[in-house]
Formats: sequence, C-alpha cells, structure tokens
Amino acid sequence: MADNDFRRELGQQLRVDSVRMSARAGSGHPTSSMSAADLMAVLLAGHLRLDYSRPHDQHNDHLVFSKGHASPLYYAMLKAAGAITEDELASYRQLGSRLEGHPTPRIPPTDVATGSLGQGLPIGVGLAYAGKHLDRLPYRVWVLCGDSEMAEGSMWEAFEHAAHFGLDNLTAIVDVNRLGQTTETMVGWDLDTYAARARAFGWHAITVDGHDVDAIDAAYAAAEATTGMPTAVFAKTLKGKGVRAVEDLPGKHGKPLDDPEAAIAELGGRRDLTVAVARPDRSVQPHVFSTEGGTLPSWPVGEQVATRLAYGEALAALGSIRPDVVALDGEVSNSTHSDLFAQAHPERYVEMYIAEQQMIATAVGLQARDWTAFASTFAAFLSRAYDFIRMAAISRADLRLAGSHAGVSIGPDGPSQMALEDMAALRAVHGSAVLHPSDANQTARLVAEMAQRPGISYLRTLRGKTTVRTGPEEDVVIGGSRVVRSTEDDHVTLVACGITVDEAVRAAESLAAEGVRARVLDCYSVKPIDAAAVRKAAEDTHALITVEDHWAEGGLGDAVLEALAESAEPTAVRKLAVRHMPTSGTPEELLGAEGIDAAGIVEVAHELLARRLSVTS
Amino acid sequence: MADNDFRRELGQQLRVDSVRMSARAGSGHPTSSMSAADLMAVLLAGHLRLDYSRPHDQHNDHLVFSKGHASPLYYAMLKAAGAITEDELASYRQLGSRLEGHPTPRIPPTDVATGSLGQGLPIGVGLAYAGKHLDRLPYRVWVLCGDSEMAEGSMWEAFEHAAHFGLDNLTAIVDVNRLGQTTETMVGWDLDTYAARARAFGWHAITVDGHDVDAIDAAYAAAEATTGMPTAVFAKTLKGKGVRAVEDLPGKHGKPLDDPEAAIAELGGRRDLTVAVARPDRSVQPHVFSTEGGTLPSWPVGEQVATRLAYGEALAALGSIRPDVVALDGEVSNSTHSDLFAQAHPERYVEMYIAEQQMIATAVGLQARDWTAFASTFAAFLSRAYDFIRMAAISRADLRLAGSHAGVSIGPDGPSQMALEDMAALRAVHGSAVLHPSDANQTARLVAEMAQRPGISYLRTLRGKTTVRTGPEEDVVIGGSRVVRSTEDDHVTLVACGITVDEAVRAAESLAAEGVRARVLDCYSVKPIDAAAVRKAAEDTHALITVEDHWAEGGLGDAVLEALAESAEPTAVRKLAVRHMPTSGTPEELLGAEGIDAAGIVEVAHELLARRLSVTS
Repeated sequence: MADNDFRRELGQQLRVDSVRMSARAGSGHPTSSMSAADLMAVLLAGHLRLDYSRPHDQHNDHLVFSKGHASPLYYAMLKAAGAITEDELASYRQLGSRLEGHPTPRIPPTDVATGSLGQGLPIGVGLAYAGKHLDRLPYRVWVLCGDSEMAEGSMWEAFEHAAHFGLDNLTAIVDVNRLGQTTETMVGWDLDTYAARARAFGWHAITVDGHDVDAIDAAYAAAEATTGMPTAVFAKTLKGKGVRAVEDLPGKHGKPLDDPEAAIAELGGRRDLTVAVARPDRSVQPHVFSTEGGTLPSWPVGEQVATRLAYGEALAALGSIRPDVVALDGEVSNSTHSDLFAQAHPERYVEMYIAEQQMIATAVGLQARDWTAFASTFAAFLSRAYDFIRMAAISRADLRLAGSHAGVSIGPDGPSQMALEDMAALRAVHGSAVLHPSDANQTARLVAEMAQRPGISYLRTLRGKTTVRTGPEEDVVIGGSRVVRSTEDDHVTLVACGITVDEAVRAAESLAAEGVRARVLDCYSVKPIDAAAVRKAAEDTHALITVEDHWAEGGLGDAVLEALAESAEPTAVRKLAVRHMPTSGTPEELLGAEGIDAAGIVEVAHELLARRLSVTS
Repeated sequence: MADNDFRRELGQQLRVDSVRMSARAGSGHPTSSMSAADLMAVLLAGHLRLDYSRPHDQHNDHLVFSKGHASPLYYAMLKAAGAITEDELASYRQLGSRLEGHPTPRIPPTDVATGSLGQGLPIGVGLAYAGKHLDRLPYRVWVLCGDSEMAEGSMWEAFEHAAHFGLDNLTAIVDVNRLGQTTETMVGWDLDTYAARARAFGWHAITVDGHDVDAIDAAYAAAEATTGMPTAVFAKTLKGKGVRAVEDLPGKHGKPLDDPEAAIAELGGRRDLTVAVARPDRSVQPHVFSTEGGTLPSWPVGEQVATRLAYGEALAALGSIRPDVVALDGEVSNSTHSDLFAQAHPERYVEMYIAEQQMIATAVGLQARDWTAFASTFAAFLSRAYDFIRMAAISRADLRLAGSHAGVSIGPDGPSQMALEDMAALRAVHGSAVLHPSDANQTARLVAEMAQRPGISYLRTLRGKTTVRTGPEEDVVIGGSRVVRSTEDDHVTLVACGITVDEAVRAAESLAAEGVRARVLDCYSVKPIDAAAVRKAAEDTHALITVEDHWAEGGLGDAVLEALAESAEPTAVRKLAVRHMPTSGTPEELLGAEGIDAAGIVEVAHELLARRLSVTS
C-alpha cells in the first residue's frame, strides 16, 4: 500500500474501532474520535517516535489527548501500535479495565489523566519544557486538542507560556469539528481566527483539511522543521466523519452510534492493520544538573522566623543536594521565598507569571518526566488551579505545593489574599498530605519529607514570624505531631497548627497561672492527622479545643473530629476557627476578632471546664 | 483651568493621595496606583457617568478595578468624586474601615471584590451583558486591568466572550507598566502584541501613551463611539510615575514609598480638587421580561426521576414565575438540564461554552445588577472556578450554583467527570449552603429556596434516577432534613444524602429483616446541617453511620461530626465515603467497591452493633 493509502486505511480502522468500542460499552464518544482519526493516523504512521514496547523510555515522544473524551481513538491507536490486544480493547469502560472512559496513566505510555478540558495542552507545555530546558532531549510533545476546549482560558495560558519558553518541540493539533456537546463553538470553522490568535500569542500556525492525509503530513513536517516557536495545526474536520447517520450532525455527541454494524460497513469494515511506530532517537543522554551538596537549614530554638522564609531556604538547600528538584512560582517568589531557590539554581527555576493553572500543569508535566517539582504561590491563589490539582491526583502525579500567606494572620491586605479554604480543598484531594508547620525547623524538615513522598503534598506557610520551638534534631514526619507542653494530668488539650500554636502556648501559660493545666498539641500534619496523639489527648483530658486560622469547615478541627469519631470515649470538642468574613486589620486584631488568639482560647477553655465541672458536680 | 490642565492636576492629586494613604497605612501599592492615575483622572473627569450620591442607581456606569491592589488610586478617586472624606481616606487598611487593602462592596458603589487578579474583567463582562441584553440600559462598564494579569487565562475567556456577546458597552483599560511584583511581564511594553491579541479575539484595540491625557481622552471617546464590539485601551505607563525614587524601577512593588514627604513635594504637593462626575442618562427604564406564571413541578411518590432533570424543570418553572431569574451553563445544558430553562426562556439563558471561570464571573456580574443567576455545569468542573467562587463570597454575591454528575454513581465516564471534592470545597466558602437532594421533589423545592436565599448556595444533582420519597406537600428547607424511616427504639441511624439515601433505605430494609431497627435520616442540607435532627438521632440510637458518595474529607460525614462535636454524649460514628481512586464501571459496581451501597452499610452496621454489644456486655 502506498503511504497515503495506508494512512487512509488506518484512519478508517481507528474509526471502526472507535465505533466498536463505544457500541460494546454502551457509552463513549465515537463521533469526537472519528473527526480526529485521520489526524492521528498520520501522526502514528509517520511522525510519532515512541517505543510502545518500552513506554517509560525517557527518549520517547509524548502524546497527550487534551480532548480526553476521544479515548476510543486513543485506545484504537494503542491497538494499531500493538500496545494492547483486541481483547483488552473489548474491555473499554468496564470495571477493572485499564481502558477507562477518559485516559489515565493506568494504561502506559499515558503520561497524565485528561477528561477535564483545557488541561492537556498546558500539561504538554510542562512536558515540552522538560524536554527543551531540563532533560535537553530531542523528544517531541504532540497534543490533540478539541476546538470546544479552546474556550478555556487555560489553553491561552498554555499558548502564551509555550511561546515564551520557545518550545519548538511542542505541536498542538486542534481538531476543529465545530460541534460541541450541545451547540456550535463560538469560532465554528473559522480557522483563520484560530490561526490569528495563535500567531498573536507567538506560535507558528498552520490551517489544514483534517481529512487530507497528505496535507496533514506536510503540516506535521512543517511543525518539526520550525525552530524557536511551537506550532499549532488547526484542522477543519467533520464530527462523526465517514458515517452519514452522524457526520457533521448536531445531537450526536457522547453516545454510541444507533446502528454500529451499518456504520462499520459504511467505513469499509473491520481492519487489523498494525503500525511499526518509529523508535525514538536514543543517541543523546538526558542532562543532569551538577549539585554542590549541602545540608538542610536549621534555626536555634527561640528565634523568630517566618515559615515562608524557611520554605525558601530549605528548598534552595534541597536543590543543592538533589539535582532533580525544580521550583515554579506564580510571580510572587519574593513573597513565597522560592526566590531563594531561583537565586541558587536559576536553571531549575521556572517563572510562571500570574498563571496558576499553567503553573500546576507545568509541574504535572515535569513530574511525568521524573522531575521533583515544587510549585508555590499565595495559598489563596492555589484555588485558581483547583481543577488541575484534582486532575493531578487522577494522573497519579507526585506534586509538591506550597502556599504562603495563610489565614487572617496576614493582616492588612484583606480577605482576597487570605487562604481560608485551602486546607479543606487540599484535604479533599485523593491521597494528599496537608502540612501546616508552626515554625522554621518543622518547615525545613517537611520540605525534605515532601520531596520523598509520592502523591500530592501541600505545605501551608505563614506571612509573619513565629517562634522556633522544634529542636533542630527532633523528628518531624508527615503524619506526626508535636507535644509542645504537657503534664500527666492535664485538664484540657489545645490542638493547634501554624500561627495558632504560638497563641495556644500563650493561652496555656495564662491558664497555668490560674492553676489550669493545658496540653498543647501541634498538629503540623493536618492530613494525615496524628490520630494516636489526638486520641491520647482525648483519653487523658476529655476536653479538646482545636484552633485554626481557616474557615471552620474542612480544616484542622474536622480532621481532629474524624480522628475521634470512632472512639466512643466521651470527649467535648470545641472548634475555634474563622467564622466571619475578615477585613483589613493588624494580624493581632484579626486573630482576636475571630477568637483564635490566646485570649479567645482562654475564654473557651473556661467555658468548657466550667461546663464539665457543672456536669460532674 | 483648561480641561487637560485639570486632568493633569487631578492625576497628580490621585498620585499624592495614593502615596499618602500607603504611607499612613504602612502597606499598600502606591506605585501600581501611580501608573494608572492619568488613565483614571481622564475617566473620572470626562467619561464616567456615575452618580456617587446614589451609588446603587441602576443607570450608573460601572467601574471595576480588576487590578484591585491599586486600591489607593480607587479610594483617591472616591475622595475626588466627593464620595468619601479625607478622614475616611486616612482609615485605609485599618480595622473597621470600609477602605480595605483591596476593594470590596463594603464601600459603595463598588460592585464586587477584586484582589485575585484576572477576575475584574470577566466580572465586567457579566455587568456589560446585563446592560446590553437584560437591563437594556445605556450604562457603560469600565474595567481597569493590570498588565501582569493578562497572563491569567480567565482574561482571555473574558476577551472571547465579550466579543461573542457584542459588548460595545465594555471598555478594558490596560495599565501596561511592564513591571510585575518580581519581574518584567512576558510581553513588556510591546503594546502591538497586546493589541493584536485583542483584535484576534474580536475587540477594537487602541494603543496609547498612558500619561498623555489628550490621547487617553481620544481613546475613551473612540471606545464610546465603537459599536458591535468591546474596546481595549492598552496604555503604556510608568510604574511609580512622577517620583524619581520609584519611577519605572524594579523592586518597588507593594510597599509604601521610603520618603513620602519628598515624593509628595515632587508631585507638586497635596491638592483638594473635586470632580463633578457626570450623571447617568436616566431617560430609559430597565427592561422587564414578561412571565406567564406557573407552579413548581412535583412528582408522585414512588416515581424514578433524576434530580438533574428535576433541577431543569424547576428552574424553567421558576423562570416562568419570576422575571429576574437567569440561567447560565458551561456547554453541558443537556446534561445538567438547564436546557429546559433555555428552551422556555431563551432570552434569559446565557450559553457560556466551556469556560467555567467566565461562567461564574458572568453570574457575579449579573447578580450585581440584581439578576437572580443560576449557573450550572458538571459538579466536578465547578472546581475550575473555585477561586471565582471564593472571591464571590468576598463580593457578598448572591450566587446559585448547580453541579450535576456527582460522585462515583455516574459510572463509566471515570473519575475526571466525578465530583468527589465539591461538597468539601463548597462547604469551605463563607456563608454557603450545600444542598444534595435525594429526590426530585426535594430538588424542586430547594431550587425555589435558593432563589430566595442571599449568599452562595450550591445544589448537587445526580446523573441517575432515584426514587421519589418526599411528598409534594412536605416541607423542604435549607437547613432541614427528612426522617425517611424511624421507630421509637432504633438501634442505629443511617445518615445519607443524594444517591446514598436509596442505598440506606435498602440497607435498613435488609437490617429490619434480621430484627435490627435502623433509622434513615436524609440530610439533603449538608450545610447548614440539621444539627438538631442529627443530635436527636445520636441521643436515640448512640450509633451513627454516615454514607456519602464523596471523598471522606469535608463532606456529609464531617458535617455530622461537627454537629455532634460539642455534645459530650458518647456516640460511635462510622463514616462511609469514597476512599480509593475510582475507575470506570457501572454505578452499582462503583458504589459497591467503595462500600457505600446497601451491602456495605449493612456490613458496617453489624460491626458497629457487635462492638457495642461487646462493650455493654
């Protein structure tokens, strides 16, 4: 078969397999697969350099399905490449199958999960950044995008950053089939408008008939030959191409074809072509950064240090110890103090500007290439990328996040800059760790722990200074806690984290002067919480006060309640947290206004103990 | 004084006042204010039509400071307009002052809170949409944007939608001072690149010297004269303009000037000019949609109905009853069933395409103009707009959100489409209500309740059908619950919501067959939770099992634990929730795999009761 005949046949096979899979599963997106089948046939049979037998080979090209709902097409490609069998293809969308409704890394060589639109291209930017600036390997990154997802702002963050980073190893293939789930896109088939936008964002843009295999081939070749900028191929296609019952018709999104057998016949019947996909260039070895070594910083007990500064110093030190550590920041590095890493390791610092979604996506892409990425911004602004963090968990990504300026304790900047929902949001991410150290030594140790830990871990740091209480040699571990003060017969336990540890200690000192013995438990690991320490405190004192600079929902207090839920031990718990919309003010005024300062804790301790006294007397 | 002299003097006054305010407060962003002072002087003195003495007048123009950190400039404008006194200006950033670090609606006529970058322009799109297509009033919307925030994808969602909606009443004024917090922006002073991007997105674009008052004046006049498309004015400015110690210098972001007195002298000293701001055109009355009236839908007990369908039917009915109800959807209206509203009230339906951030921002803008906006998408994808929802709470916005396709019960589409963190995220929004009805009648009643309720309320709906158990005449209220079955001496309480109510009922039936009496409590209001009903169940049965199709963190289980926290009553609580990363599968398989189906509940009930038996015997 001539090359273009083969590719046309392969395109039809990908369509047929997409129809078959969706029909068998009773759900799926065959029409969205059929529009892009020729685009993917040409890629697989002529441009992609990926050894499917060695899916984790570092030299491989990367293919990201940003339009993850076209998973039938993706899996049909895997079958054509010999990576999966016909039997496995038949398991699509069934429990236990690696072939889920939207691709995940459970099926190699898939790097990341997609299915929330507008994320694949941003992650592709991260993969391409790794190839160009860190690994320094000649692999290319190909991203199949839908046209509906071009409405997501995150796509334009990707466009801007890819050009800014000079990612000529990145190609976006946009399947412009015009039809979304319910209606035509805003741009329709106006490919020139897409191309003008891409060019204005610094890309090489090509428009093409997405069913003309020679034209597609030429477009990819032009992309490969372009230097200094990424290339976008905008392809005019027909949704449901090849089957009259669905082709270019509205109302055919996301459902199997009514008559799959007729459709398969119309497409020329089942085929079993296999493609000998090109192998990658293995001649170049990945770049390894040289490191000078070093030790984690520590501070003498009693010193006043902001935990955000400790984060920066620890991260810079970690970068000197480990060549795989990379830092990203959302243009606030002099606030989060990732600037200390940037100064020490400029080649491993990625300035993401004010584009938090692209920051997280880049980190996800970097970790897929085994870089240990730490991403930081104000904790409040991590909320901007919450969907990306959620999806990163489905990607099984190892992601280290640091959010500074937690809580009302930031003071005069006001509530827009205060993270008050971050612990709740991050606790509800699968497999996450949520860490909120109270002092500099805890922070440094936790940064090192995060680097070792798989999954998503989040470090919450403070704007203002706190007292170093943790000795430099003390154990600080994810899942741990620290008893700040205790006696054998404490009356009450104050459970705190971050800024409220200082307040709890002051409260305990004040209570001690009245003869009330308060234990102070520093739960710097909010998830996993040190349930044993919490339960022991409950058993010992039967009265707990949790204190956090965070909304009352989903943070430390709820973590403590969960730790106690299954014990039938009667323990009175009072949860102190932020309960009013804060305004500007000094940190002290704002902590006081919410009753999460020492005075507020003392007052509640009195109430709690008086109530217990009245119950027991 | 000639017009341009006056405006130059006014610009200097705005700078001087910005310097004074920040110096007094000891914090703030004077240099970011100084770059835009001439832009705002020309606006205030010649183009804005806003009666500051009647800040809530529906005919007023709207001014949104998308670069909210330039709040000193904003408040200096209020002083110049006579809206606040010099004394109030002096209260900037102090506890109790309306002049917070970033603007909020606490100080009229401010429509919304800003301070998380990239949100003001999207909200401006909502305000302008209201003016153009709903109110049909001639007011204009002016948005002052920073250049750093142009890196936020949400800005490009705003650009695309504003052009798509034909919003020629919207003007974006972009203060291109080139310098961000830590570094130069990606685009720098390349105004032509910004203009090319704006034009590619369908805008009229003008570039201008941002310190030439005549040129600015002409640009605004051109914007006012432009029909059919919005206008962006890209203004080249100097950060810290007018004071040599800071002008166009890096490292001068977000801090008071070192020598404010010298700076004020260099700026020509303090001035007390006042501006007679133009009054709005009050000749046109706002459009009111005609409504045919109607009643909320209801379903007979026993019927099988998806709550997402009930949402659509109830919303369509509400639209027939109330002319102020508007619906928005993120291009999945045939999934969320807002399509029923769109069909019934096409002029009040806003298709937002796949741009969830812009969807929420539009809703925030609409409610600022007193429209009752319901915004829907897959619940999982509301996470894309989490920062916008967080900020909406600071905006004191009345916002109604509906998220469909909750939990693993959606089945084969896989985890990217399953909302599993939504209740945690939304509970941690200040003043929110989180509602998860188990049947169609509950849903319809809650939709009506949401329309009445100030603040942010969130309705979580199901993909699959559930049994109607709530009678059409029963009370269903925010903060309520429903006892599905109970006796006077129940052994255990099953607390459920949404899909798990059906499972809990099946479990109770199965337990009843063994002689175990299980109460079933339907907590359709997860926040506020019906604490009284939960506590009564705890007192009556001393054993609670919470069951939710959501991660274990931050959802129903935590809400129940909080309700019980302060009672020293010994109650064993077992929290059943999703604890593994789901895959594709049938709803039944996936509920079973997580132990949140009837069989899983029965098993845990056995364990719990056996343990209690062993403790008491």
